[in-house]
Amino acid sequence: MASEEILIVDCDTGIDDALALLYLLADPSVRIGAVTTVFGNTDPETAALNTLRVLELAGRPDIPVAIGAPHNLRGNRHLAPDVHGEDGLGNTHLPVPAVAPIGEPAAELIVRTARENPGAVHLLAVGPLTNLAAALELEPELPRLVKHVTIMGGAMMHPGNVTPAAEANISNDPEAARIVLRAGWPVTLVPLDATMTEAITEEQRQRLADFGSPVTTFTAAILDLYLDFYAKNAFGERKAACHDPLAAAIAVGDVEPLLAPIVPVDVETGDGPARGTTVADLRGQYRGFPADASATVRVVLKTDRTFGERLVERLCGAEETRGAA
Amino acid sequence: MASEEILIVDCDTGIDDALALLYLLADPSVRIGAVTTVFGNTDPETAALNTLRVLELAGRPDIPVAIGAPHNLRGNRHLAPDVHGEDGLGNTHLPVPAVAPIGEPAAELIVRTARENPGAVHLLAVGPLTNLAAALELEPELPRLVKHVTIMGGAMMHPGNVTPAAEANISNDPEAARIVLRAGWPVTLVPLDATMTEAITEEQRQRLADFGSPVTTFTAAILDLYLDFYAKNAFGERKAACHDPLAAAIAVGDVEPLLAPIVPVDVETGDGPARGTTVADLRGQYRGFPADASATVRVVLKTDRTFGERLVERLCGAEETRGAA
Repeated sequence: MASEEILIVDCDTGIDDALALLYLLADPSVRIGAVTTVFGNTDPETAALNTLRVLELAGRPDIPVAIGAPHNLRGNRHLAPDVHGEDGLGNTHLPVPAVAPIGEPAAELIVRTARENPGAVHLLAVGPLTNLAAALELEPELPRLVKHVTIMGGAMMHPGNVTPAAEANISNDPEAARIVLRAGWPVTLVPLDATMTEAITEEQRQRLADFGSPVTTFTAAILDLYLDFYAKNAFGERKAACHDPLAAAIAVGDVEPLLAPIVPVDVETGDGPARGTTVADLRGQYRGFPADASATVRVVLKTDRTFGERLVERLCGAEETRGAA
Repeated sequence: MASEEILIVDCDTGIDDALALLYLLADPSVRIGAVTTVFGNTDPETAALNTLRVLELAGRPDIPVAIGAPHNLRGNRHLAPDVHGEDGLGNTHLPVPAVAPIGEPAAELIVRTARENPGAVHLLAVGPLTNLAAALELEPELPRLVKHVTIMGGAMMHPGNVTPAAEANISNDPEAARIVLRAGWPVTLVPLDATMTEAITEEQRQRLADFGSPVTTFTAAILDLYLDFYAKNAFGERKAACHDPLAAAIAVGDVEPLLAPIVPVDVETGDGPARGTTVADLRGQYRGFPADASATVRVVLKTDRTFGERLVERLCGAEETRGAA
């Protein structure tokens, strides 16, 4: 990643959000300007505490954490303790972190940072898109101020996860997702099509546990519940999708998508069975996706399916580096 | 197909509807009780005339043809002269057939035939589902009277064709499709996931032309415009999807699907970007699609991709048989 780029991670930490943060924090060349939190896997206050726990663990308590939207644009929310645990981190129940969240609301932090660093901010959003929609409302020029937006969300030629058609982040706030995906800024969208094929396995989790550093021990611990959920509800075996860390790795250029057309994308916001569906125009698939000048969203449909290994190596490798330093 | 089964073909003839009829008519063991027509590729009156032309060509002017719905349940319609020609048969402009459609409306014919032959009628619907919805309205017991329903329609893990998310038959009347797919009768749904992978090529069309029988010459002629459309709008080369004939072949048991889970299916009827989308619950895909006792729709996701060849052989082989008889 270019060193002048400032990453703002908007997340609902969350097991795979924690993995994404730890993945990014393991690379000292990645500059995380702030983390903002939103409801989703858990409430935004818990997500902020969890984020601070992760930052502390990685030795980066200096990164500010700002709390954002407690519910979606319709004023309601659905949390996911069944997937992420009652505490949002696999029921590991870590102590309260030493540092507190800052007082600035998430959307205001995003707008201020973008105004202060025009063309430098890369928004990595791995939760519901409510904070980004709020930031666009606060600053309509945001799409011109921000360098890029990378989003984990949606399901194209893959089933949804919270409903037959809809993925959790988009389903949690379809109205916000529609605003964000149609704002005209350059977006990279990382849907289930890619993330469900990038799994971390029980064998890899065990290697993290065996490595025995604070970060890998923590990672192995939070993955335990996550693999339970995925075994029962998705894969039928103990492995889990690397949703948020894959999006993080794509955002910083570590993973180069194998298929990622730039196509029109919309979101269904009606109350029928397709509510929260991402509707991407993939009809050009047999013709190599002819260029569409009106489109601004790059949809990642395929990666090389080696990300679980990359994640493990990164977390163990970074620990080795830190230990040697 | 069991000889006691009576097939009623509900169609909007239409190039690939004509292919479906000719495919079925080439097998003397298939008993077609009637053909009913609906708006879609063309208006239902033209579809009836086109059907009668096809029946005449195949030597079966005895099969009754009944006209059905001129528009969808909302009272509007969108025809497809760009795909099927101004005459619905690739602008081949055949003469008016010798036989006329019968006076009985399509939905009444369907209900009457089902009542007269309880448990024997197999409905093969390859157009918008308006006539079937009307028949269900006329006779709420229809799901108990009919043996099976095979439908060409929908798009699951494949893009739509008339919109990014919706396939033409469902998109033309989402309200009817929702009624029909949720009626509780046993349905086999053949969506674009299967039909777009079963193509007929220019080389195969040329072999039909070279064979030189009335049926194959006609087939090659109507396919000319169809291949133009598909080359330009879908495949980038002269080949076309075998939508309706594939559904016909599956209905009579000639093609055995390789992957066809029985899963809950719904249709989005809102006015957002997903209008007309078929929402099938395919989340069980990684676990071999666990049985769902509430589901009655078998969704054909995969066939063996040799149907174009089967279609050519059937049409040529049947001609040889007829010539020899």
